[in-house]
Amino acid sequence: MADRQVPLVVIKRLPRYLRYLGDLLDNKVYRVSSTELSDKMGVTASQIRQDLNYFGGFGQQGYGYNVELLYNNISNILGLNSGHKTIIIGAGNLGRALVNYGGLQKRGFEVIGIFDTNEDIIGTTHSGITILPYSDLQSFVKDNKPDIGVIAVPKANANDVAHDLVSCGIKALWNFAYVDLKLPEDVIVENVHLSDSLMTLSYCMADMEESKK
Amino acid sequence: MADRQVPLVVIKRLPRYLRYLGDLLDNKVYRVSSTELSDKMGVTASQIRQDLNYFGGFGQQGYGYNVELLYNNISNILGLNSGHKTIIIGAGNLGRALVNYGGLQKRGFEVIGIFDTNEDIIGTTHSGITILPYSDLQSFVKDNKPDIGVIAVPKANANDVAHDLVSCGIKALWNFAYVDLKLPEDVIVENVHLSDSLMTLSYCMADMEESKK
Repeated sequence: MADRQVPLVVIKRLPRYLRYLGDLLDNKVYRVSSTELSDKMGVTASQIRQDLNYFGGFGQQGYGYNVELLYNNISNILGLNSGHKTIIIGAGNLGRALVNYGGLQKRGFEVIGIFDTNEDIIGTTHSGITILPYSDLQSFVKDNKPDIGVIAVPKANANDVAHDLVSCGIKALWNFAYVDLKLPEDVIVENVHLSDSLMTLSYCMADMEESKK
Repeated sequence: MADRQVPLVVIKRLPRYLRYLGDLLDNKVYRVSSTELSDKMGVTASQIRQDLNYFGGFGQQGYGYNVELLYNNISNILGLNSGHKTIIIGAGNLGRALVNYGGLQKRGFEVIGIFDTNEDIIGTTHSGITILPYSDLQSFVKDNKPDIGVIAVPKANANDVAHDLVSCGIKALWNFAYVDLKLPEDVIVENVHLSDSLMTLSYCMADMEESKK
């Protein structure tokens, strides 16, 4: 697999490589040079070569990269071929949008359950997944052994839910609640903080207004 | 407002300061030292002082920070007090989740319209906002002058939608489609690429598995 010394900043760039390589494959392009990839992606060819060198000599002088091989290697590095059973906590608008989110399935994340405490929606079905009562969480996890819990509950409940998931044995969380979860060090947490993104946008707008004055 | 020399990495940290300061205000705490803030946020007191120094001397020796003043100053720096009229393109699960997303309103982003091309859902109302036909976009923008367009359409349509928005005069986009938009340099684009986040999570899991071997 990946060398553990790969800097996180390089890892963070891999999804973008994968996206462009996937687009090439969709267009039946099977060979690409670092210069061509550089033009498409708007980064320097030397950065591309440097980044991809971390993962062994996938490129060949005078031939370029084998797109399919590179795509598969990066997929493997990112663990996308492993298959991850995923459960979602919170079946509000966000939770339901995530059940329908094709990106999950495409990256090997299979949603096997969604949970809520709201009696009015428990038992209803979305994209083939029935909303279960939150009180069933523990027994469900015991029986089905999901790898990942998605936290799509309000901020005030997020830490409690995170602790429940961890105490059931789930070690990886995708957290949408706008709070820093306080958890043991061996739990992997990836945050999606939409408010932070919105404030960055807002700042850039304010800055642009200012620069016009 | 903000000095234009503030590094983006500091700007990116401001939302998190704002969140913690907001929590303090909610708990009626009106004064905080950099040491207390440091304990809560898990960053060093010296980083806090250094970051906040960019925005003038809000702290006082022996007193600490006035929480409300600091909160308001950071809000202003982030442009959150300006009020932004926002429209959403795409009324699928994601678009509808965003109409309902309280964070928008809370940060001064008022959703004034949502658009789709799907005849089956045009005319239906979500959180008080009626889905309008995409063909009305141009006249709506002319009459209502929104500042921000949110792109919540499939990847294949995202660049077309972005160009339509820009040609109507919208200069700031919040893009959820998994594609790099190709736009004039003066257009502000903030991307939320959920797939990238998911792949980072997946990589960290693969890496942890590997380290157990």
